[in-house]
Amino acid sequence: MQDKSKIGEILSTLDKDLPQALDRLMEFLRIPSVSTDPAHKDDVRQAAEWLTAELTAMGFDASVRDTPGHPMVVAHSPKGTRRPLLFYGHYDVQPVDPLNLWQRPPFEPEIQDLPEGKVIRGRGAADDKGQLMTFVEAFRAWKTVHGELPTDLVLLFEGEEESGSPSLRPFLRDNADELRAGIAMICDTSMYSDGRPAITTQLRGLYGEEIILRAADRDLHSGSFGGLAANPIQVLVNALSTVKDADGRITLPGFYDGVEELSNELRADWEDLGFDAGDFLSRVGLKHPIGEKGRTGLEMVWNRPTFEINGISGGYTGEGFKTVLPAEARAKVSFRLTGTQDPDAIRDAFRAHVRAALPEDCSVEFHPHGGSPGSRMDISDPAFAAAKSALSEEWNREAAYIGAGGSIPIAGDFKEILGMDSMLIGFGRDDDRIHSPNEKYDLESFARGARSWARILAALA
Amino acid sequence: MQDKSKIGEILSTLDKDLPQALDRLMEFLRIPSVSTDPAHKDDVRQAAEWLTAELTAMGFDASVRDTPGHPMVVAHSPKGTRRPLLFYGHYDVQPVDPLNLWQRPPFEPEIQDLPEGKVIRGRGAADDKGQLMTFVEAFRAWKTVHGELPTDLVLLFEGEEESGSPSLRPFLRDNADELRAGIAMICDTSMYSDGRPAITTQLRGLYGEEIILRAADRDLHSGSFGGLAANPIQVLVNALSTVKDADGRITLPGFYDGVEELSNELRADWEDLGFDAGDFLSRVGLKHPIGEKGRTGLEMVWNRPTFEINGISGGYTGEGFKTVLPAEARAKVSFRLTGTQDPDAIRDAFRAHVRAALPEDCSVEFHPHGGSPGSRMDISDPAFAAAKSALSEEWNREAAYIGAGGSIPIAGDFKEILGMDSMLIGFGRDDDRIHSPNEKYDLESFARGARSWARILAALA
Repeated sequence: MQDKSKIGEILSTLDKDLPQALDRLMEFLRIPSVSTDPAHKDDVRQAAEWLTAELTAMGFDASVRDTPGHPMVVAHSPKGTRRPLLFYGHYDVQPVDPLNLWQRPPFEPEIQDLPEGKVIRGRGAADDKGQLMTFVEAFRAWKTVHGELPTDLVLLFEGEEESGSPSLRPFLRDNADELRAGIAMICDTSMYSDGRPAITTQLRGLYGEEIILRAADRDLHSGSFGGLAANPIQVLVNALSTVKDADGRITLPGFYDGVEELSNELRADWEDLGFDAGDFLSRVGLKHPIGEKGRTGLEMVWNRPTFEINGISGGYTGEGFKTVLPAEARAKVSFRLTGTQDPDAIRDAFRAHVRAALPEDCSVEFHPHGGSPGSRMDISDPAFAAAKSALSEEWNREAAYIGAGGSIPIAGDFKEILGMDSMLIGFGRDDDRIHSPNEKYDLESFARGARSWARILAALA
Repeated sequence: MQDKSKIGEILSTLDKDLPQALDRLMEFLRIPSVSTDPAHKDDVRQAAEWLTAELTAMGFDASVRDTPGHPMVVAHSPKGTRRPLLFYGHYDVQPVDPLNLWQRPPFEPEIQDLPEGKVIRGRGAADDKGQLMTFVEAFRAWKTVHGELPTDLVLLFEGEEESGSPSLRPFLRDNADELRAGIAMICDTSMYSDGRPAITTQLRGLYGEEIILRAADRDLHSGSFGGLAANPIQVLVNALSTVKDADGRITLPGFYDGVEELSNELRADWEDLGFDAGDFLSRVGLKHPIGEKGRTGLEMVWNRPTFEINGISGGYTGEGFKTVLPAEARAKVSFRLTGTQDPDAIRDAFRAHVRAALPEDCSVEFHPHGGSPGSRMDISDPAFAAAKSALSEEWNREAAYIGAGGSIPIAGDFKEILGMDSMLIGFGRDDDRIHSPNEKYDLESFARGARSWARILAALA
């Protein structure tokens, strides 16, 4: 039985070894593991191998596990008698474009000493390599102090989180006995604003779709055909403009089936957070919430489903002008889902909506992306209270139960396939610029994140 | 006074020298004079110099004339006593993208012997280098037979027609005395279908606009901001979807001011052409006219104004998915104008329409392109009847007065600045793929085009 009282020693070890921990993180960040881009396939594998080598050196039984896509990293600490804990993170990162907006190369990370504090700058610093390494450094410090790893840990680190996790569910199914634990710890979320530690208890799901519309068999000159021939950009624009109404509500039939109103308890908690949407938006140069009428800002981002156009292209977009009716137009769109909304039903409704907008001369091709419902955790599990208390202690502030607007389908997958709940604890901040140029992770998030996990490990031992 | 009766000799000379004429055209087509792309600036000048050298060698007083943009080529034949004739064409060409759809390199032209006849394949073959050279070869044959050029010719060849002709109007104003003639001949139009020769007596005008919408100061993650922050693609799509109503009519206030109904005479002529919109569209893989309800196909393309989205871009459009709310979105749109529609008034109405669709957090930037009203010729000038008769003789078919859906603002500029009407005669065909990959010009169009100009020159002497 490991000794809970050594937590003070573990925390000092983490503080003392921070420079070495940062060196390791920098090395990890220099691997351009962009999972969505086939050109980076080898880099993704290299990141998996790097992690496996780190974990093996610490005493884990770790391996790179092949899948039809990018590999998984799975590691186990020695068997013992505690409630098994699974730790999940992802080692792949988002693409970097537009590259010209980066102030330094995205895969040449550095520690920057800014007036507001030190930050780790580079692609993946916050999402999710920096967060993932808070786990790893906590385990390492435990090992240093106790001479052995905490028992009954299962680590699962994914390489396809930023590209829709196509291999994840089959992998969980095929390795269910090996991976099943008492509860899962997921480190892919943020703190509440200004350093208030938080446990995310609900997440939005995601369903995305690429749409390709085609009309003529070539690009047409608008002087010869304009006014007569179908223009696929116009058809696409017409279809996409009517998915939401003037009040920001989505018009697809049955879309809101399964969307749940907040419980009074959570509504009260969220109000207590004092969220100011205008202030939140001002960090990215905006001021005015544009979402569904009659909803609070936190509801808009945490508890209400959305429709967003993530990309659109068609026709001539280079220098100068070309008066063309293009042969095709494309868009990538996505829905964030809440409650028990069914991604399959929404896919059908969306496709029917697009098809209904097509004139006879247009054809459409759909390529789905993702497709996972939202998740809500059962916070009556005592592990939640224990973790909340450990977090409050580390940060000297009452930790909060919050929601998240993003999609971490893994939480739903753990529930469905492995029958376990998840605790979503992360130390990201809203200004981390994840998925954008100049991503960063606060040094404080990294250092106190690792300390937080050490405390949570101790509390759950 | 030149002898009109030598026309037979001139026509035989053209027939005999066709191989040399084609060699010259191939040389001209190999110069990639894409005016809209700054990377081709030197190529555009090279095309001007090539033309000038050709004309000088034939006895014209020819020169490359600088402008703030690409140069003009101006040439004069000796002064005489006939009604001065101005010949206008353009030596610049459209961009070639998408390059991957070309069956051979666009600037390596070749003569192809197809089952339906020989064609000259390459960018600019029909628009407008091949057509322009029908002038030049007619003049050359005249010179060969008569020993001297026809007198009182003024040639004006432009290098910016495919990029909005920014230098043309100032150039016409600054050189009005030198360029003014009795009537202008413009070789940038098509025959009516299936080799029926035609004189185009009305053209649509053009006003284009690039729109850049901006919202947040960076790309946002749709998990963190989706549902709360303005998405400029959605705003753009909303604005562009409401420019036309369900009947294909444009909704901008005052848009139809100045649009004229067809005269009964022209309506009867056009009906006589037996245009079948479904058949016309079937050549590009389409079937169903999609234009303004209650209008004939020829009205849609020749006599009604249009709105087209020529290009759109925004957000993530690469491989895979990126759930981003982009910082900006762009579109290039254009209106074809008829009657006396005022491009300035339409620009104001369109910009007001876009601004009205903007939420508070969005800003817009406009970059206008072109801006020329439609043109209608006065066909009571006896030169029209003379040219119509010469064309009918060459092609053994009654030539037709037709309209054109494209914009050749030069005709309006000649009227406004030089006070002269234009005769628009060209030998292009609807399947020439101008502005598209694999552009071609029929060998018959080139050969009989030059013969036609020889006949018209003789008829107007």
